[in-house]
Amino acid sequence: MHILITGAAGFLGQRLLHQLLQRQTLCDQPITHMTLVDQSQAEAPETPGISLESHAIDISAPNAFDTLLEQRPDVIFHLAAVVSAAAEADLDLGMAVNFDATRALLEGCRAHQLSETRLVMASSVAVYGGELPEVLDDMTALQPQTSYGTQKAMCELLINDYSRRELIDGRVLRLPTIVVRPGRPNAAASSFASSILREPLNQQEAICPVPRDQAMFVMSPARVIDALMHGAELSSEALGAFRALILPGITTDVTEMLEALSETAGPEAVARVRHEPDPRIASLVASWPARFTPRKAERLGFIGDQSFREILDAHLSESEPGGSAERPSR
Amino acid sequence: MHILITGAAGFLGQRLLHQLLQRQTLCDQPITHMTLVDQSQAEAPETPGISLESHAIDISAPNAFDTLLEQRPDVIFHLAAVVSAAAEADLDLGMAVNFDATRALLEGCRAHQLSETRLVMASSVAVYGGELPEVLDDMTALQPQTSYGTQKAMCELLINDYSRRELIDGRVLRLPTIVVRPGRPNAAASSFASSILREPLNQQEAICPVPRDQAMFVMSPARVIDALMHGAELSSEALGAFRALILPGITTDVTEMLEALSETAGPEAVARVRHEPDPRIASLVASWPARFTPRKAERLGFIGDQSFREILDAHLSESEPGGSAERPSR
Repeated sequence: MHILITGAAGFLGQRLLHQLLQRQTLCDQPITHMTLVDQSQAEAPETPGISLESHAIDISAPNAFDTLLEQRPDVIFHLAAVVSAAAEADLDLGMAVNFDATRALLEGCRAHQLSETRLVMASSVAVYGGELPEVLDDMTALQPQTSYGTQKAMCELLINDYSRRELIDGRVLRLPTIVVRPGRPNAAASSFASSILREPLNQQEAICPVPRDQAMFVMSPARVIDALMHGAELSSEALGAFRALILPGITTDVTEMLEALSETAGPEAVARVRHEPDPRIASLVASWPARFTPRKAERLGFIGDQSFREILDAHLSESEPGGSAERPSR
Repeated sequence: MHILITGAAGFLGQRLLHQLLQRQTLCDQPITHMTLVDQSQAEAPETPGISLESHAIDISAPNAFDTLLEQRPDVIFHLAAVVSAAAEADLDLGMAVNFDATRALLEGCRAHQLSETRLVMASSVAVYGGELPEVLDDMTALQPQTSYGTQKAMCELLINDYSRRELIDGRVLRLPTIVVRPGRPNAAASSFASSILREPLNQQEAICPVPRDQAMFVMSPARVIDALMHGAELSSEALGAFRALILPGITTDVTEMLEALSETAGPEAVARVRHEPDPRIASLVASWPARFTPRKAERLGFIGDQSFREILDAHLSESEPGGSAERPSR
């Protein structure tokens, strides 16, 4: 079993890598080789029985995938992407990395006749937008209101068509907002959702820019990684007529998140969250769909978090010394 | 008012051209110049007050649109496409003409700063597919099951994003199956829908390959042309958060079509239709959605046919000597 990961130096890529190295199998086969691809050299810890190679390349460069695909990977996790804010700021960059590089990857698989290779791409709830119903499902139209969402939605269509034509065996998972992310706050509009938990737990202040009743659709990092691996292991028949689906996140709001924080770290932790409404962020977050009926994911055996409290507890146990998520390499 | 039409030598392109030359106005402005683009030189009848130029070019060639867009057209009707069967037979050809050329057109408009130019693209019910509900609407997910539908759906997303970014003012109309088409039967799976009416009216035999109760979503050529012009005349605000919509076709079936034929041309015409089931065509046609609630189109003032009888009557009056549709140029 040879696995290729694009975006392997990123948050999800590193976490997926470590999980795969720990499991040592995928699709009931022993993992023997892993190819890591990112803009910068991804950390590749030595593991007995698994050979790792790490390539620092620009996936939007011509023929970037050519030599990589000659090695005929069995599973490709395609996580590399320009994030939402960057794709909005630079249309050409977003199209080149998010769309054209995905198309080049598909074309590379076609050229190397990798029709059985399973390609798992991370998509996003950002594919949804516009005049949405209160509760969305797998048959809700994609009317993205960002270039990032547009590019991901176009990739979904292309992966579906290449799969239908049996040029590749694609699977696309629409990821909810991931909480609790490790690290520091960043420019993403969703950054606060991790910040208002992570920082108070580290005795630091955090700012909540959205109203307390703002609903969000979230999933823990561990469940997302499980879903990516499950996405690779599904039979193609089970996926039916379309290769993309929404993952089973849960709907929460700021009030519930801070209640969980209070239960686990006391009211003094909650007191470290300052409520400073930011109309720009609040309106962006309000435009994201928060309620889904993820029937297809449930039918296919994807597993979501049980409650927000479970998400926070998982974060706490991972943050402890010896916990699995907070490796220095990240 | 300068209008550019791609696919101007085709059935819809020629019909739109003649209608525009007859009206002499669009968006309440006199039409002064028209640029016709197609693989072969489109017929361009001389009309006082309107200058016409006709270009035989391959729109998928590099920089194909460059000199055309230097003239800064006010409205572009983008009708050129590789048809469904050809796009299915040749993925590269379909991608090049249906997707890449549309993207090049958008990029050309961006380079020439044609942010106010109204781009009307013909899409298709082929964008729908997969596990569909009984009745579709504007919020039904696009899960196309052909490369043609995939390419059109990707163009819809891109046009929406370029419009949202105010790089172009796009409008995309999903066309129902058009009946009655003039000409001869062709390889299209939908060909029979025109054939079983057109041929008996011309004292010829026709074959119906689908069951009598097979439902279809149809629109007359005249209503489609009206819709294209209406699509150009709408204000961009009225279009809301997504630039594509399904046109208000009507749902009919073979039984109703042949009843209308009997009413207008007698049972002897209906007797010229031989029912020879073709499982391949029947299953393709059965996979097309036939029932829609086209709320957005109705709200925006698009007008459909009133009944199938009206469609047939329009065809009959156009087929008479002096009728507007059957010009020898087509």
